[in-house]
Amino acid sequence: MRRARIAWQGAIHEAVPHGEHQLKLADGRIVDETEVIWLPPVVPGTVFALGLNYADHAKELAFKAPEVPLVFLKGPNTITGHRAFSRRPADATYMHYECELAVVIGKTGTRIAKSDAMDYVAGYTVANDYAIRDYLENWYRPNLRVKNRDACTPIGPWLVDRDDIANPMQLALTTRVNGVTTQQGTTADMIFDIPTLIEYLSSFMTLRPGDLILTGTPEGLADVKAGDVVETEIEGIGCLMNTIVDDGTWFADDPFKKARTA
Amino acid sequence: MRRARIAWQGAIHEAVPHGEHQLKLADGRIVDETEVIWLPPVVPGTVFALGLNYADHAKELAFKAPEVPLVFLKGPNTITGHRAFSRRPADATYMHYECELAVVIGKTGTRIAKSDAMDYVAGYTVANDYAIRDYLENWYRPNLRVKNRDACTPIGPWLVDRDDIANPMQLALTTRVNGVTTQQGTTADMIFDIPTLIEYLSSFMTLRPGDLILTGTPEGLADVKAGDVVETEIEGIGCLMNTIVDDGTWFADDPFKKARTA
Repeated sequence: MRRARIAWQGAIHEAVPHGEHQLKLADGRIVDETEVIWLPPVVPGTVFALGLNYADHAKELAFKAPEVPLVFLKGPNTITGHRAFSRRPADATYMHYECELAVVIGKTGTRIAKSDAMDYVAGYTVANDYAIRDYLENWYRPNLRVKNRDACTPIGPWLVDRDDIANPMQLALTTRVNGVTTQQGTTADMIFDIPTLIEYLSSFMTLRPGDLILTGTPEGLADVKAGDVVETEIEGIGCLMNTIVDDGTWFADDPFKKARTA
Repeated sequence: MRRARIAWQGAIHEAVPHGEHQLKLADGRIVDETEVIWLPPVVPGTVFALGLNYADHAKELAFKAPEVPLVFLKGPNTITGHRAFSRRPADATYMHYECELAVVIGKTGTRIAKSDAMDYVAGYTVANDYAIRDYLENWYRPNLRVKNRDACTPIGPWLVDRDDIANPMQLALTTRVNGVTTQQGTTADMIFDIPTLIEYLSSFMTLRPGDLILTGTPEGLADVKAGDVVETEIEGIGCLMNTIVDDGTWFADDPFKKARTA
């Protein structure tokens, strides 16, 4: 099953797909997907993100692949929903998307063995972990200015139940910018797979329901500009759409309207 | 005014000091400070922590002082209250305390000018940002295993109102381990002061009420062992007490009772 969280008519609803472009609420009402505000499909707890978890991407950034998982945290300010806007800072010279499989934790656990790890997974969603590469100083430092800007990490559209995905380590990842494919990869190329990441993180801290693990991105990054429409798609999980706006638009009176009518 | 958040008799209460060793609840009841569970004085939003924000401490760790604030995030799992326990991992060879002034944000803001920054401060508390130094690889990487373990960051006892502190950049910091003073410094030695940190962080993200900024620690670090009682005190803000337990004790049936009667 796949479920979205949306805001519509004064409330937040759980919704499931209804045909190709509509959603069905729990009470049976049908809404168009463009009529609603898509929220992150889960209210995020701690958000972990992997640096350089695909060897080809590490090479692309001219860093060596890590020997232990390179994990950093993202604040709640960074997370936004499907069909929302991310901001290109006025002074940025390079902002890249990162299509990532996001693992949603479903059960509290500490010191979880790799063999039990999948029991702690509620499901998956798609994340686009934008980076302002200007501030990426070395592979140890996916720092705050690179990765912690407001609304720099859309997730969604759906939370897809774990059991709906036969093998999460064998899914195609694709990014399209304005309809042109720019990034292609497969989760099979992760350096540290999902059970390894859960074992690692829970070896020194407790994982809780709603915690998210953004598992890293393969090679194929490109600079995005204001106005670009970026789709990050993962086989069987969903296609997350996001539009880049510039600082001026972001801080204007009605950035969303302006971006839509641009 | 100084306020604590405590758990007592089935509920969470706000409490103020009453004499030296008691607390007064909002309804007038008086409780002993050892009878209650002290919770973090604020429910933390995003928790920022500064690396190497005192030049002498940077030197102590043999790193050069940063030219821009070195900020990392801490997950909600790390935060615990006054009189609680922090865990020394079984395999750690060096675990040090860090007495830090914690700034509590009181108002939502983006792009806050340094001159307005103090308007966004609700108050202060004391933090002890323990580190497992074994995993400290370089100055860019206050990584997850160093700084994100469960209950590795006690804060408290009080939230002290901003206006009660005439000059937060002129406060003595002291750490005592089992009653012996091991760390002494002053907030006057911060490299990046509070207004600078607020201006910096809000330049690329929104700060919100409840967000915490742990402003770094001066020199004078020492290894702590299971059983050690660590007091981190900041002039005018409070004295935060914490006890170190080892992994075995932590995961025992009743670690708190065992640690108390040890």
